[in-house]
Amino acid sequence: MKTKTLMIAAVLGLSLGAVADEGQWQPYQMAQLQDELTAKGIEIPGKQLADLSQYPMNAMVSLGYCSASFVSPNGLVITNHHCAYNAIQNNSTKDNNLIEKGFLAKSLSEELPAGAQERLYITEAVTDVTAQVAGALAPELSGSARYEEIEANRKALIKSCEADPNYRCSVVSFHHGLEYFQIKQLMLQDVRLVYAPSETVGNYGGDIDNFEYPRHTGDYTFIRGYVGKDGKPAPYSVDNVPYKSKHFLTVNASGVRQGDGILLAGYPGRTSRYRLADEIAFAANWQYPAQVKTYQQIIDTIDHLSAKDADLKVKYASTVKSLNNRMKKLQGLLDGFGVTDIHAIKQQQEQALLDWINADASRSAYQQSISALQQVIDAEQAYSQQTYYFDNAKRSDMLKAAMTLYRLAIESEKPDAERDMGYQQRDLSMIESRLARMEKSFDPAMDVAIWSEQVAEYLAQPDAVRVAELDAALAVSAGMSQAEVSAKLATLYPQSQLTTTEGRKYWLGKAPAEFVQSTDPFIRIAVAIYAKNKALVQQEKTLSGQLSQVRPAYMQAVIAYNNAQGKPVYPDANSTLRITYGSVEGYPAVDGVYKTPFTSVKGLIAKRQAEYPFNAPQKLVDAYNNGQTAGYFYQNLAAKPQLPWHCKLFSCPEPEVKAFNSVPVNFLTSADTTGGNSGSAVMNGKGELVGLNFDSTYESITKDWYFNPEITRAIHVDIRYVLWLMQYVDGAQNVLDEMEIVR
Amino acid sequence: MKTKTLMIAAVLGLSLGAVADEGQWQPYQMAQLQDELTAKGIEIPGKQLADLSQYPMNAMVSLGYCSASFVSPNGLVITNHHCAYNAIQNNSTKDNNLIEKGFLAKSLSEELPAGAQERLYITEAVTDVTAQVAGALAPELSGSARYEEIEANRKALIKSCEADPNYRCSVVSFHHGLEYFQIKQLMLQDVRLVYAPSETVGNYGGDIDNFEYPRHTGDYTFIRGYVGKDGKPAPYSVDNVPYKSKHFLTVNASGVRQGDGILLAGYPGRTSRYRLADEIAFAANWQYPAQVKTYQQIIDTIDHLSAKDADLKVKYASTVKSLNNRMKKLQGLLDGFGVTDIHAIKQQQEQALLDWINADASRSAYQQSISALQQVIDAEQAYSQQTYYFDNAKRSDMLKAAMTLYRLAIESEKPDAERDMGYQQRDLSMIESRLARMEKSFDPAMDVAIWSEQVAEYLAQPDAVRVAELDAALAVSAGMSQAEVSAKLATLYPQSQLTTTEGRKYWLGKAPAEFVQSTDPFIRIAVAIYAKNKALVQQEKTLSGQLSQVRPAYMQAVIAYNNAQGKPVYPDANSTLRITYGSVEGYPAVDGVYKTPFTSVKGLIAKRQAEYPFNAPQKLVDAYNNGQTAGYFYQNLAAKPQLPWHCKLFSCPEPEVKAFNSVPVNFLTSADTTGGNSGSAVMNGKGELVGLNFDSTYESITKDWYFNPEITRAIHVDIRYVLWLMQYVDGAQNVLDEMEIVR
Repeated sequence: MKTKTLMIAAVLGLSLGAVADEGQWQPYQMAQLQDELTAKGIEIPGKQLADLSQYPMNAMVSLGYCSASFVSPNGLVITNHHCAYNAIQNNSTKDNNLIEKGFLAKSLSEELPAGAQERLYITEAVTDVTAQVAGALAPELSGSARYEEIEANRKALIKSCEADPNYRCSVVSFHHGLEYFQIKQLMLQDVRLVYAPSETVGNYGGDIDNFEYPRHTGDYTFIRGYVGKDGKPAPYSVDNVPYKSKHFLTVNASGVRQGDGILLAGYPGRTSRYRLADEIAFAANWQYPAQVKTYQQIIDTIDHLSAKDADLKVKYASTVKSLNNRMKKLQGLLDGFGVTDIHAIKQQQEQALLDWINADASRSAYQQSISALQQVIDAEQAYSQQTYYFDNAKRSDMLKAAMTLYRLAIESEKPDAERDMGYQQRDLSMIESRLARMEKSFDPAMDVAIWSEQVAEYLAQPDAVRVAELDAALAVSAGMSQAEVSAKLATLYPQSQLTTTEGRKYWLGKAPAEFVQSTDPFIRIAVAIYAKNKALVQQEKTLSGQLSQVRPAYMQAVIAYNNAQGKPVYPDANSTLRITYGSVEGYPAVDGVYKTPFTSVKGLIAKRQAEYPFNAPQKLVDAYNNGQTAGYFYQNLAAKPQLPWHCKLFSCPEPEVKAFNSVPVNFLTSADTTGGNSGSAVMNGKGELVGLNFDSTYESITKDWYFNPEITRAIHVDIRYVLWLMQYVDGAQNVLDEMEIVR
Repeated sequence: MKTKTLMIAAVLGLSLGAVADEGQWQPYQMAQLQDELTAKGIEIPGKQLADLSQYPMNAMVSLGYCSASFVSPNGLVITNHHCAYNAIQNNSTKDNNLIEKGFLAKSLSEELPAGAQERLYITEAVTDVTAQVAGALAPELSGSARYEEIEANRKALIKSCEADPNYRCSVVSFHHGLEYFQIKQLMLQDVRLVYAPSETVGNYGGDIDNFEYPRHTGDYTFIRGYVGKDGKPAPYSVDNVPYKSKHFLTVNASGVRQGDGILLAGYPGRTSRYRLADEIAFAANWQYPAQVKTYQQIIDTIDHLSAKDADLKVKYASTVKSLNNRMKKLQGLLDGFGVTDIHAIKQQQEQALLDWINADASRSAYQQSISALQQVIDAEQAYSQQTYYFDNAKRSDMLKAAMTLYRLAIESEKPDAERDMGYQQRDLSMIESRLARMEKSFDPAMDVAIWSEQVAEYLAQPDAVRVAELDAALAVSAGMSQAEVSAKLATLYPQSQLTTTEGRKYWLGKAPAEFVQSTDPFIRIAVAIYAKNKALVQQEKTLSGQLSQVRPAYMQAVIAYNNAQGKPVYPDANSTLRITYGSVEGYPAVDGVYKTPFTSVKGLIAKRQAEYPFNAPQKLVDAYNNGQTAGYFYQNLAAKPQLPWHCKLFSCPEPEVKAFNSVPVNFLTSADTTGGNSGSAVMNGKGELVGLNFDSTYESITKDWYFNPEITRAIHVDIRYVLWLMQYVDGAQNVLDEMEIVR
């Protein structure tokens, strides 16, 4: 019953190109954006921001899954507490729980190894390799041939780039295949934990506050990169020395004020800003509701079974946590689509693009690119609907392990360069550790409960959706109840060796023929459905190959249209280094409610409870209530207005200022972020560190599809809160001393 | 674990006198407040506001339990939908449910009688009768003698004033006995329903939104006063004619803007602004928590029993609704005490008063008044703790009816003037209708369930708290379980005649001796505990008499202290006509959240759901979405800033303005209100009607104890929403035509 027409009317002015503070820009584009940067009060020239060898961009670090930055000449790195969670957990024991207690190394020798898997990546070169990847592709190639050729070119480039083992390389598509860039990153392999606050600070509010604002999370941790004595990356060794970071961010202890312009740099993961209206409709009307149903089934099953079993609860805690997180995001997407009719906005934008194309006969090729794209998308959506329930019917960790092992065996028969990505030599250690880790988060009774429910759901679908090979291998048939399915599937587990780590590892390196002869029930099922799986992979490759031809053509139209209006276009996020700029500002959350841009220690203490996740430490409360806040206590946080000259002669009215009277904790900006931007440096106009990005608001969740400048806000931890805690609460003077702090 | 010290620090500047927009002023005080009114932008002179015979105060109306105002020369009155609820309900049937449908009389002849109990009261005279009531009281009188003498004087004054049966009179204590005023009100007895929106507008949000903001409630209804053809008040008759209101409010269809000053006039019920810190501590630490426990027990019992019985649910719906409302208010009080340490603020204020007293030997009498008050309060609190569980142990509607009937029989043996107030001739019709109404909200099984739980709770208290007469009459003893108690009490109902209206009415007019001889178990219990009840009433009278001596003495100290600082003092609310002024403004609700002062039809539609109470009518949505909003659609609602003269020569910065772009629905002001102010006229600086008061925010609930100007906000329905609905949604042109509407 909600009406959406109003929101549409309000935003119709927006076009397919970037407006307001929208834009996850490639660093090189900053030179083109000098006017916008100046208007925001950003003092660093765009040209300097474009140069990865200069301050501040050379201080940027990737953890692979999160963003971070150097803050001292000795490899000291600041990132989010939740990004360094593994490092803290790896060093925790029942008796010495660093997650609960927090950790501070008082000297280098006390710093703790973060874990064998932890890496720091420093982007050193970004090279346009479009010609090498896609330059020689014949237009008439079939989808799958196109896919294979692109993959072969990418693998070759990566192999050559990684000849120096100190580097990790990737070849990434921009604008969905219009351009390819090779990213070369120095890879530090010895990462250590320096200082982490207690989770009662670093994860204050926990899952309850996930995606929420007002927020009071001290989501920061310090780690350090180490190298061999020769200065080159090396695995952990006691003899290693801190990495000499060429550049590092200066920290500004005065922070920012409401209205200030900011820069944010990091590694955003994935966005869908250039999708067709039709793709949004599919996601909103089919894909997301289907996922909500599936996830809720799994969550309910896990909750039900683990209600009486503490061990099961622990084993599946991270699964539930991640499902709950995805559910909240899905709910936010569906709620957001309810408030703002993004589908209608996209339709209007597409119409404006079409009008522009039709206004000039020379643009007719663009017209064809849109219809070609629409055709492939139709096929892709049909494929998704076709395979969704079949994919869910394979949702057994046991079956997944068997399928991985068998596919690895088959791929391993080919030369390394010809293997599918993900099954190459360089991926083996990852696969092995995944198979080993399974032990910690797996239980046969739970596995069969989740699996049989999804199989029953799959069996309730129309015949055309089902796969005969699977039905035969499982000995199930249409219309079977979950109880019947469960009774059948439960018998498989006692007969299988894959329930143990050794049982799974046994199959690493075995030839495909041995799989075919195995009587292990899960291996048998994996073998039985391999051909079908492979055919589907092939169909995906075909679709992907087709999209790699038609999406770039569409993106060319979008770019031409925007350039004609003098607007640059940023590519969708793809886990590469990006820069976004914005302002410190609040937003109208719902009718009658405006969320203001700063939260305070006062508010944190008011929200405090005896139980996690709101049990902030007593020493924090004491320090604050004892007035130990010098340097970080603000009466107000509004920027001084820029008054005209005559206001020096006569008094002019100044905007009303809301009293703040506390230490700032979190703040909001209009910066354009997404998953992967966790830990990103938030910088003032001089490029000095003023905060860390760690989340965005619930109302912003739809931003992956559409950036609504009115309400899209990222949530940052204020550097003043970090420094206040270090100085007055945690006594981290040694870490403070290492940084360059200005005001 | 919440800290309160910060809030104290923020408000320590405030003294016991009125500051900011605090103050429920007696109209005559407005003349003293001319400077404050001018500063608020109120154009009507304070002197004019003080004159009840002039515009706008002569347009004010009381419904007895709510406030209202005349808006046409023909007795048309506007008040809240919830204030006129009985009038709408009385005219509703299953087949013609006016609550659901709303109602509009297209002509006078279609207007419906509101009900025999409905009245309109127009205050015509307020006379200081302090001398007559308390002037001749000897200081050495005992508490109870003092009480009796005051009551006798009040009753005599009322009787003489009510010699003209067209008037209803009261003699009301101000400043807790320091002054007494006689209020003489013209009483119209024929009230009719003119126009009420559907409850989906008038009660949009229902109990869920009670005390909440953002709010979107169209809480208004139009009624009309009728008189006999001779122009004098008369009971309902088809021959009656509309009352010719001498004055009526002009309506300003341009409403108000953020920052505008407003006036609010009405009949606030009860406040406790001048209580001692110790009284707050008692309420916060003992009284409110005890009530929360009791109410929750009763709510749970009713919910439990009525879960399977729709009839029971209907019978106890209004009981549950009223208990839930009280629970929300209690919870708001306790939450508010948690956020702001009002006890500590009051202590500081008392200390400031003491410091002032001690600074001058001539003020020593004031010092004694405080300790004398403290002594009586100690006794009063001991009495409350002593009797709380005994009172609860009488919580049977049957027993209450029996006690009322027996006490009435005993009082009726005295001359009317000597009877206790509430048991006089003038109270009989009220008692009778209460005994008759009981049928609709009573069930023996529910009554015994609620009662036995409270008796069991009482039996679990220390011996000193229990009453031997009750234990004997109920045949219960310490330590009995609820099941045992229930088994005993359940046997009483089948033996009693009081379960029927006739059975109860039978006892009206019977002599006390007949009660004593009765075998009806409830009459028997009432007789058995009468002496104890009477002793307690006597104890209450004694306390009340003592308080009527010591509270005025304390109030004299408070008034002298404030007057010494040039501050006038307003009396606690006592259901008499008051004026408050304030500004249209939002408030900081919690850290990071600012509630803005207007809500909109856009926001109402976004909150809309298929189910009550959020099922706003489709025709409202259609009118809005079709753009039928001319005259009431605002792009922003910020007041134009008052810029200095030189800004006409040079451009000066204007404050940032938040876009509104809708029709306003509700708005917030800093006006000082409480229960009884429902339906109060909200007026602009010219005294033109711009809204109706109907609620206040959750954060404001503690204002009955302490007015915190930072966060205390009243919620009003915007007159523009009313007029928009009348013009574009409900077609109430005939009612619009009757009013004087300006812009």
